[in-house]
Amino acid sequence: MALSTQPYKGARDFYPEDKRLQNYLFNSIRTTVRRFGYEEYDAPILESLDLYLAKTGEEIVNEQTYSFEDRGGRKVVIRPEMTPTVSRMVAAKRQELAYPLRWFSIPNLWRYERPQRGRLREHWQLNVDVFGIDTTQAEQEVIMLANQIYQDFGAKSSMYDIKVNSRKLMDAVLRDYLALDEVEAHSISKLIDRMHKMDVPTFIAQADTLIAPSKREQGTVEKLLDILSVKRFSALPEALAHNDSVAALQQLVSDLQAAGLKNVVFDITLMRGFDYYTDIVFEIFDTHPDNNRAMMGGGRYDGLVGLFGVEPVPTVGFGLGDATLANFLETHHLLPELPSETQLYIAPLVAAQQVQPLVAELREHGVTVAEGVYGKKLGDHLKTADKKGVTFALIVGEKELESEQFTLKNLVEGTEQTASIARIISQLQDYRTHAID
Amino acid sequence: MALSTQPYKGARDFYPEDKRLQNYLFNSIRTTVRRFGYEEYDAPILESLDLYLAKTGEEIVNEQTYSFEDRGGRKVVIRPEMTPTVSRMVAAKRQELAYPLRWFSIPNLWRYERPQRGRLREHWQLNVDVFGIDTTQAEQEVIMLANQIYQDFGAKSSMYDIKVNSRKLMDAVLRDYLALDEVEAHSISKLIDRMHKMDVPTFIAQADTLIAPSKREQGTVEKLLDILSVKRFSALPEALAHNDSVAALQQLVSDLQAAGLKNVVFDITLMRGFDYYTDIVFEIFDTHPDNNRAMMGGGRYDGLVGLFGVEPVPTVGFGLGDATLANFLETHHLLPELPSETQLYIAPLVAAQQVQPLVAELREHGVTVAEGVYGKKLGDHLKTADKKGVTFALIVGEKELESEQFTLKNLVEGTEQTASIARIISQLQDYRTHAID
Repeated sequence: MALSTQPYKGARDFYPEDKRLQNYLFNSIRTTVRRFGYEEYDAPILESLDLYLAKTGEEIVNEQTYSFEDRGGRKVVIRPEMTPTVSRMVAAKRQELAYPLRWFSIPNLWRYERPQRGRLREHWQLNVDVFGIDTTQAEQEVIMLANQIYQDFGAKSSMYDIKVNSRKLMDAVLRDYLALDEVEAHSISKLIDRMHKMDVPTFIAQADTLIAPSKREQGTVEKLLDILSVKRFSALPEALAHNDSVAALQQLVSDLQAAGLKNVVFDITLMRGFDYYTDIVFEIFDTHPDNNRAMMGGGRYDGLVGLFGVEPVPTVGFGLGDATLANFLETHHLLPELPSETQLYIAPLVAAQQVQPLVAELREHGVTVAEGVYGKKLGDHLKTADKKGVTFALIVGEKELESEQFTLKNLVEGTEQTASIARIISQLQDYRTHAID
Repeated sequence: MALSTQPYKGARDFYPEDKRLQNYLFNSIRTTVRRFGYEEYDAPILESLDLYLAKTGEEIVNEQTYSFEDRGGRKVVIRPEMTPTVSRMVAAKRQELAYPLRWFSIPNLWRYERPQRGRLREHWQLNVDVFGIDTTQAEQEVIMLANQIYQDFGAKSSMYDIKVNSRKLMDAVLRDYLALDEVEAHSISKLIDRMHKMDVPTFIAQADTLIAPSKREQGTVEKLLDILSVKRFSALPEALAHNDSVAALQQLVSDLQAAGLKNVVFDITLMRGFDYYTDIVFEIFDTHPDNNRAMMGGGRYDGLVGLFGVEPVPTVGFGLGDATLANFLETHHLLPELPSETQLYIAPLVAAQQVQPLVAELREHGVTVAEGVYGKKLGDHLKTADKKGVTFALIVGEKELESEQFTLKNLVEGTEQTASIARIISQLQDYRTHAID
């Protein structure tokens, strides 16, 4: 029986045209992130299972990880996220590193979940983290950085919202204001995280099952719904308005607005899934009705590095996935045409030894050149070049070599010209600068 | 108990200085490979186990793969090599693709083996493949391409040998010339693959156990040793000298020499590990006594695409690992100093809102800028910048903002100058062009 040609379910093959798009996205991201002084790191895709048991969140670890025992009996996981890994790496060199530490990575991550638009079993995710800043300077910087990433792809502020909230504020809401115990507060916070996927009656019915009957009878669920409908800091009840977390959030929003970000909104329903966040959380949300979803999310997690037995480090970070980014750019018509990286197809009509010095010269000058198969006819060469989407073809036969004048065909425009190799090289270098770089 | 900070055994964390080296290696490789008209592809790191059972070789699949059952009961493998994957991808679009197809990828691969120098459980490997050329044009092209990769890192031909051999020739040696049956020939070929790791008596003793007693008594092992000591085509016995495979090998060697590659040698002991090679195989071998090992290996495998139930495609490809490449460059003193990608550290002595327009201007002009933590003293800022290895620091205080003249410190040279922002930007852009690009 023949082998299947399908990739693993929920994961993608990247044919050259797909990889070209991915390279375009990642190159633009790398340029932006480096301008903010961030340096790239990386780590093995396999990690010890222990690393995720502490803080990643039960649903992910128990139901969505690719975990197994290796041949030496170690319990390992194909990483579902990068935050535990980067915390481990910082902890390993806690004393040697110079803070603030600005790091980024674009790892591939794996989750076993039902494949759907924008949710794949394998995806790549930009991870940006700053270690060692305990003020909202850190949140402001990474949010401005994320905003710049979208702007550098040509996005306008009207295309997305930047949402902020605070885990500390939500703790005050759930534990103090609503008087929930720890277990109730945790369950309700997970329910709030999912609330935009359900209607209000369903939310109430589910909330009812998560808290003690006495609290239900006191109207706690109604009080919860009321507070979740708050849209402005000024609408917060007196008991919460003076919480420190509100002042920090207000400061962050006003600093971001002063720096020119007009689309920052306070969203009290924003929870973010991971258990490790300790304070401010944020999200960038596509406002287009066809792609109404979070594209980037993050927050402050001051507790993770300390789990490795070293002095804790204040940390703020975010993740930004490749598939949701591509969906956003596509929805808003921001994806450019990406031509083949191969500029020139050589159509050889003589033996290889006669053609190769010319090919070597072109390559030495940085021209990207594919050679046709020796012995084929001119028509076949041109057909192949065209099918490949290479813009230029160069005919190399006896006549051309003797006269040192070559015919360069532009297969896209259907034009041709005859010129020396020096002239052709300079033209292709110029074309490259405009079309690719 | 605190969590461990160690990465998974036999795999590497890439701190920014390590990732910088990897980016340097891969960027140089991508530039070279694209000049030969190759386009990048990629695929999921998980594949179905079936894909490797056919042709990868028993030792790798049964003893060295990371294989497990996913939550849906599928038997999957973290890819140990890329060749089956790329063959699958070509087979999936067999009719649509334009041949010759020139593809490359730099995947990470996993093998469960004892970690040692240059052999890690996770490594990255450049994979280069050309599909659709049935002449030695294909072998010549990919060998010239591999050679160019080393040359572009500054290597000289004297630093490495390019070895060639042919599986067809070895079939003629083992099956016809030595009259071994299929099982004997396969075992002896695996023994030849390992022969440089053992002494001659061990080789003889092991060979003796792999063939029938009658053949041992006829002196087959001595005849094998004789043939394995052949160094030139002209020294081959008459019965083999006229084999078609010898003519093809001779043609390839002479074409490569004509193209300027002087370090090509015929090595009849070169087998390469994978079972799927069908004809010419090749290897690039470091000649330095401290690093005497294969750094790149490949060959023709015309049978793999056809295993997926489509028309076969003639294919030649090679793999080139990142760890062995880094060892080679280090051994031959070819690794450059790689400075931090962050060019400038801002030492702010006033509030963020006063500094940020300046920072934004620097970034808009492509300067990579890290901001110091607001509220720290000048000495602390400069110490941090120095510890991070950032070359330049810019002091931004009241006086500087008022006079629009800023002090730029070169922390490496210990010099400083005072200039306008426009002048500083132009200087840093210039410095960048020389130091990083």
